[in-house]
Amino acid sequence: MSDDERKVVLDKSDFSEWYNNVVDVAGLSDKRYPIKGMNVWTAYGWRIMRNIDEVIRRECDATGHGEVCFPLLIPKTEFQKEADHIKGFDSEVYWVTHGGLNELDVPMLLRPTSETAMYPMFALWVRSHNDLPLKTYQIVNTFRYETKMTRSFIRVREIHFFEAHTCHESYEDAEAQIREDLRIMDRVAKELCLPYMLIRRPDWDKFAGAVYSIGVDTLMPSMKTLQLGSIHQYRENFSRAYGIEYEGKDGERHFVHQTTYGMSERLLGAIVGIHGDDRGVIIPPKLAPFQFVIIPILAKDRVDMVLKGAKELKEEIEGLGFTVRLDDRDTRPGSKHYDWEIKGVPVRIEIGPRDLEKGTLVLARRDLSTKETIERSELREALERVLADIEKELLSRAERILEEGIREVDSIYDASDLVKEGWEGVIKTHWCGEMDCAEEMEKTLDRTFLGFPVEDPDSGELLEEDGNCMVCGRPCRTLVYLSRSY
Amino acid sequence: MSDDERKVVLDKSDFSEWYNNVVDVAGLSDKRYPIKGMNVWTAYGWRIMRNIDEVIRRECDATGHGEVCFPLLIPKTEFQKEADHIKGFDSEVYWVTHGGLNELDVPMLLRPTSETAMYPMFALWVRSHNDLPLKTYQIVNTFRYETKMTRSFIRVREIHFFEAHTCHESYEDAEAQIREDLRIMDRVAKELCLPYMLIRRPDWDKFAGAVYSIGVDTLMPSMKTLQLGSIHQYRENFSRAYGIEYEGKDGERHFVHQTTYGMSERLLGAIVGIHGDDRGVIIPPKLAPFQFVIIPILAKDRVDMVLKGAKELKEEIEGLGFTVRLDDRDTRPGSKHYDWEIKGVPVRIEIGPRDLEKGTLVLARRDLSTKETIERSELREALERVLADIEKELLSRAERILEEGIREVDSIYDASDLVKEGWEGVIKTHWCGEMDCAEEMEKTLDRTFLGFPVEDPDSGELLEEDGNCMVCGRPCRTLVYLSRSY
Repeated sequence: MSDDERKVVLDKSDFSEWYNNVVDVAGLSDKRYPIKGMNVWTAYGWRIMRNIDEVIRRECDATGHGEVCFPLLIPKTEFQKEADHIKGFDSEVYWVTHGGLNELDVPMLLRPTSETAMYPMFALWVRSHNDLPLKTYQIVNTFRYETKMTRSFIRVREIHFFEAHTCHESYEDAEAQIREDLRIMDRVAKELCLPYMLIRRPDWDKFAGAVYSIGVDTLMPSMKTLQLGSIHQYRENFSRAYGIEYEGKDGERHFVHQTTYGMSERLLGAIVGIHGDDRGVIIPPKLAPFQFVIIPILAKDRVDMVLKGAKELKEEIEGLGFTVRLDDRDTRPGSKHYDWEIKGVPVRIEIGPRDLEKGTLVLARRDLSTKETIERSELREALERVLADIEKELLSRAERILEEGIREVDSIYDASDLVKEGWEGVIKTHWCGEMDCAEEMEKTLDRTFLGFPVEDPDSGELLEEDGNCMVCGRPCRTLVYLSRSY
Repeated sequence: MSDDERKVVLDKSDFSEWYNNVVDVAGLSDKRYPIKGMNVWTAYGWRIMRNIDEVIRRECDATGHGEVCFPLLIPKTEFQKEADHIKGFDSEVYWVTHGGLNELDVPMLLRPTSETAMYPMFALWVRSHNDLPLKTYQIVNTFRYETKMTRSFIRVREIHFFEAHTCHESYEDAEAQIREDLRIMDRVAKELCLPYMLIRRPDWDKFAGAVYSIGVDTLMPSMKTLQLGSIHQYRENFSRAYGIEYEGKDGERHFVHQTTYGMSERLLGAIVGIHGDDRGVIIPPKLAPFQFVIIPILAKDRVDMVLKGAKELKEEIEGLGFTVRLDDRDTRPGSKHYDWEIKGVPVRIEIGPRDLEKGTLVLARRDLSTKETIERSELREALERVLADIEKELLSRAERILEEGIREVDSIYDASDLVKEGWEGVIKTHWCGEMDCAEEMEKTLDRTFLGFPVEDPDSGELLEEDGNCMVCGRPCRTLVYLSRSY
């Protein structure tokens, strides 16, 4: 593909089309599978996703969660035990009705999430306060029969999913777990170079069965918010339905308090959408299948010498603990640059005969398109520094998108004008708590209630501030975000 | 649980019951999930399985396979394209017929294996000889509607599965791939401390759609063979059905030649069954969630000092790159020994006040129940040595089981006597190739044809030897194994 051709394909100013195209040309996923919304993870895309999984695993293991793997299929009878939960998912699940040529006595569904698979077992696992807290997670695929338009990583019917499920003695212990989850989220997001907002969902939008839900939302360049994860307080809602009881230190039986924490392949969707540009995707250094690609500059008569030098360089870089690929294909360097730019390899290393003689290298950054020449003798420091700089740059760019994507507005008239002028982003304002005012806001601004900002991961409390309801003008302290969202 | 109680539960002389019990008490899997044959992977069991997956991944990555992940669901229309294949699986698959409240236009099945999911995409991916070889694999769960009795890891309805799928220009290239697969198998089996036989299946028992199938069989202490893996030559059987064509160097269109290689959680079943004993399972060092467990001997008045020493020891061992757990629970050391024996931690390390003073440690091997005192100054060497020794011991014990489990017999009368005397194991003999003789053998010996031994991974050829058919006495060179199998 020539440079010109590519420019036609990748134009981020039309975000929606750009997104679909960049997923395709970067080879992250193939959506030509004969079931719509069920896409094929190609080797390159799957490696990035697996690297994201590893970041999550490391955090969960370090906080004492055990990784488990529950069956995919859930009997209808178990699924129906928690009334709100089934209401939330009834129209969205796939049903298995036949095994071989026989109709099954009890239909089974493909997990849309695993509460109803896990909790009958938790009822067997938890006996006494000594079994608590029970902290588990799994990384599996889940299934939702989406009727809306699908989009790679963002809205699919087979979803690569992380779900942590915990049981605790008390509400306070469950609350402490939620704060731990928020801190995990913070560390994970840093490695993915993704800024985010913690937003408690309004009651009418909480997870089916939850007491409350905190959404972890980022902002895509389309100015739509994207939920990256969610954390739920269940209190005793599920433990009463599934009989998860323990004998307390007081000798009495109590129901456990539960929380869950979910994230999905949307993390990759956010990375693609937020960091990418007209030249392709940009993969954050900690997730890249390879952090460096070496492109030998093969001058005539010196081919063997340069290839040998490039191979030695590759081994040296691997020896330092980085991931690297040598592109020794017999094509011109320019075409190699394009290929690896599209795929978002963080740093391209050029090495030619003169570099070999002088003991230098050229590092070309994917994010800024800048080049620098480094001394071979300072290889480790230079590579560490360039990766750290790229992470910083990606995060700070993304933070800018998020900051600029939120406008605080006091009156519904001003907000309405802003929308009429073409503002697509998030609106932050005050709300008195009346449903009439909420409906007025949503209708007038053509946005929905995203929810209420959480102060920070450590407190988990709602951020409040004196102000006046945007609609009725009554004094209140509740802040609210309204947005268009995926 | 007291020592006496446990002895009652775990008695390997009744292998079948012992196996079910040991899986349970070692906490590898929980079969109380409300769907029979779909078991819950507990944290400990799942970690071992994931470690096995990592061994396989490393081998596949090193041989240029790309890891992919295909959708779980396969449309009925795609599944039906290869006639033999669908015949082989028709009565064994789960059918999804409804999405939400709607009946689907085309029913979909849960993959029992992924040929029919992957090959429509391979037809899009392969264009020219430059795209070949295409070497992919995935590690996913597959589903079979088993009607036989289920058994953890050995016969289940949701199967943790590895499957490699490759496309090649020619039959010769595909044959070379199969030899590579056999060498991968050899390296994987070594890390799992499992001996095995390479057995080409008779034509009536090959994989649905294959030209030929090589089974990788081990022998369980029950004297039944267990298929650990299988490798298949498809030639053009699937590529013709799915239209996987390439433009060759000759400018003409050709169908690709294909191979597959499958392994499953049966690898863990074999580890449990072969290495375990009346005290629990024994996990090979390279797969153990932790290779060492430190048990502090907490003498009165010295508790703090010993705990501090034990923590320092843990950090030191981790620093050396081993995995280790400190059991600082407030229970007596004897009860800790029992717990970790059941779970098969390769080495127990005891450390008490006198050890701390003298700079020594006690290493207790799980496999032989031997103890040795080592100097703290030679820690790394001692730990490396003890793990290597355990691997050697586990493999050589298992090799003995396999060797002693095969008897070569020349005449059907001798073989029949052997069976009457109670011989449960494998019978190796000569076969002339006539179906009548095969049926006579199977009936008289109450065994089925396992197949024909392969010389070695490097040749991939059948092992042949002059002899006479066990039934009709005709001279022939074909060797055959008959066995009872899982």
